[in-house]
Amino acid sequence: MEAYLDNSATTPLCPEAAEAMQEAVGRFWGNPSSLHRFGLEAERLLVRCRVDVAASLRCSPAEVVFTSGGTESNNLALFGAAAALKRRGRRIVTSAVEHSSIAESAAELHNRGFDVVYLNVDSQGRVSEQELTRLITKDTILVSLMAVNNEVGAVQPIDNLRRVLRQANAPALIHCDAVQAYGKLPVNPHPLGVDLLTVSSHKIHGPKGAGALFVRRGVRINPIIYGGSQEQKLRPGTEAVPAIAGFAAAARAIPDLQQSLQYVSGLRERLVQGLSAMEGVKLNSPADALPYLTNISLPGLQSETMLNFLSERGVYVSSGSACAKGKKSRVLRAMGLGDQEIAGALRISLSRYTTWEEIDAFLFALNEARVTLARK
Amino acid sequence: MEAYLDNSATTPLCPEAAEAMQEAVGRFWGNPSSLHRFGLEAERLLVRCRVDVAASLRCSPAEVVFTSGGTESNNLALFGAAAALKRRGRRIVTSAVEHSSIAESAAELHNRGFDVVYLNVDSQGRVSEQELTRLITKDTILVSLMAVNNEVGAVQPIDNLRRVLRQANAPALIHCDAVQAYGKLPVNPHPLGVDLLTVSSHKIHGPKGAGALFVRRGVRINPIIYGGSQEQKLRPGTEAVPAIAGFAAAARAIPDLQQSLQYVSGLRERLVQGLSAMEGVKLNSPADALPYLTNISLPGLQSETMLNFLSERGVYVSSGSACAKGKKSRVLRAMGLGDQEIAGALRISLSRYTTWEEIDAFLFALNEARVTLARK
Repeated sequence: MEAYLDNSATTPLCPEAAEAMQEAVGRFWGNPSSLHRFGLEAERLLVRCRVDVAASLRCSPAEVVFTSGGTESNNLALFGAAAALKRRGRRIVTSAVEHSSIAESAAELHNRGFDVVYLNVDSQGRVSEQELTRLITKDTILVSLMAVNNEVGAVQPIDNLRRVLRQANAPALIHCDAVQAYGKLPVNPHPLGVDLLTVSSHKIHGPKGAGALFVRRGVRINPIIYGGSQEQKLRPGTEAVPAIAGFAAAARAIPDLQQSLQYVSGLRERLVQGLSAMEGVKLNSPADALPYLTNISLPGLQSETMLNFLSERGVYVSSGSACAKGKKSRVLRAMGLGDQEIAGALRISLSRYTTWEEIDAFLFALNEARVTLARK
Repeated sequence: MEAYLDNSATTPLCPEAAEAMQEAVGRFWGNPSSLHRFGLEAERLLVRCRVDVAASLRCSPAEVVFTSGGTESNNLALFGAAAALKRRGRRIVTSAVEHSSIAESAAELHNRGFDVVYLNVDSQGRVSEQELTRLITKDTILVSLMAVNNEVGAVQPIDNLRRVLRQANAPALIHCDAVQAYGKLPVNPHPLGVDLLTVSSHKIHGPKGAGALFVRRGVRINPIIYGGSQEQKLRPGTEAVPAIAGFAAAARAIPDLQQSLQYVSGLRERLVQGLSAMEGVKLNSPADALPYLTNISLPGLQSETMLNFLSERGVYVSSGSACAKGKKSRVLRAMGLGDQEIAGALRISLSRYTTWEEIDAFLFALNEARVTLARK
């Protein structure tokens, strides 16, 4: 029996997405910009996909910009907003625990002369309102904060941002990287009060190669790619129709969030109970983390050694972000964890398809790892 | 019977690509950056894809950077080279007949303070060596010239560029947009002497959503997207595995270029013969154009009227670049054509799958259009 518990890195395709991709490849292969039948049919499919993704965000289809994925959406948000607002201020506020596509873009914006500052997090991985108030000044042009942290599942106070910005009288746009929250929590940009919001297809059982940036109506940012007039000129290039079709199908297939959350909370409870029965296992995720994501440490054991041990037994987890491949976790460091705990961290990430048997297989194999590897 | 003669806009998937995508979606859905079995299997697939695309360009796999498509590759080449070389000069040389993803990127580089100059073309759509010598100066940091024009099929003297650069003693990198040439002519960057070369999947019967930029070993350009360490940090973000798998399969499936060229030349001959029998039809493509692409004008008739007429009869061509949707052709203008000819232009673009019957269906319908529409 195999247990795939690395759903924050990527998810297997849902049947709906697989079917939509096959149909797109076979029937809708025209170029959506072409004016003849094949083009128009592909264009019509694209319109339907946009409606479906917009529905999942409860926004208008005109506010959905399709991109190649979460990393590109995050880059478009940061560079696009910075370029559009550079005459109104130089300050960009983000957190110390963002995904590398935000962290590296922010570092590049710093190199280009922007004043980039980083919100600290507490031991629960959370940004406090005081911290927001401290760093958001009246020359802040962009605040980028993730909805759910990709390593520990900490949920950030996105809904406070608008108020803090108003108090500071800042002209800033608010960007939210909602890649890990999408399909798990309601991430509806309008009630949340955000201007830009990133989602990705392959974290919600859609294909790799598609994502979207929500751009609130009336908000103007610059493109990072130039060319044709696709995606309202914000993202030129022939649309990746098969991936977008799979993405939209996966968005349509998102079940009732509350029901999935309840199911996954049950799985998480069993996981945490099992872990607490093992001596020396430390829970790094906050108690109120998104139940889909659990970060633990087995101090004294290296993540990689454990990953290999587990992988050999058909149990697949990770040491943190897949995009940070092997590097030490910035997130755990920012939460104040020690070197030993960071070196021994494991991330167990669930999906609505995760089974009780997979949780048990993980617990069994982890216990074996703990006993066997500690002895060496 | 339908006739799809708009293969320069996009091509139907070849069976090999469709099969590879289905396999990628079902079996290789892991994140290539993950260290467990699912990750490693996806990574191994990606390695094989890179080898296949590299083989189609006769370059090293380490010189292939996967992107989301031709537009992104062109942007990465222009912005990446400009940023990397800005301290060595400000001049960027390109032509007046490039694809919009080059033209718009060049315009943006001009806005950012680069000295962008445009090579003129002759009535055959070709850049002369004198023109290259005239514009390439010793502070030129980038020359971007397409291999084959996407509207008329004119073949550019790419192989002359290196010599002209040496004579001018310019530090420039050479970029070639080979999107329309790839899979039709040999576009091997090493013998051609180019540093950067763009190819796209969906013009060679692969899926939309994948392309590549060849970056010659030792050449350093900046990324335009920041994040994880994928694609040697030149193109971060989880790789679009299904699209890349389809792309690589399509690259593998490219048949002997000489044989295809011979077959398509035959089709073109029939096409041109048929056209020359119709009064008032003007051939805009040069006689030595790539036979896959034929541009004509029926002065007195509007492109759009004809496109609609033909489309209703199941014959699909275009008025020019799909990415320029409805806009008047810069290319035909640069070649010195008059307003009437530009307004009445049609592009007929073939592929190795085009049949004799499709050519005849087009000729029949065009003749009908000519007679019927002229009468109105």
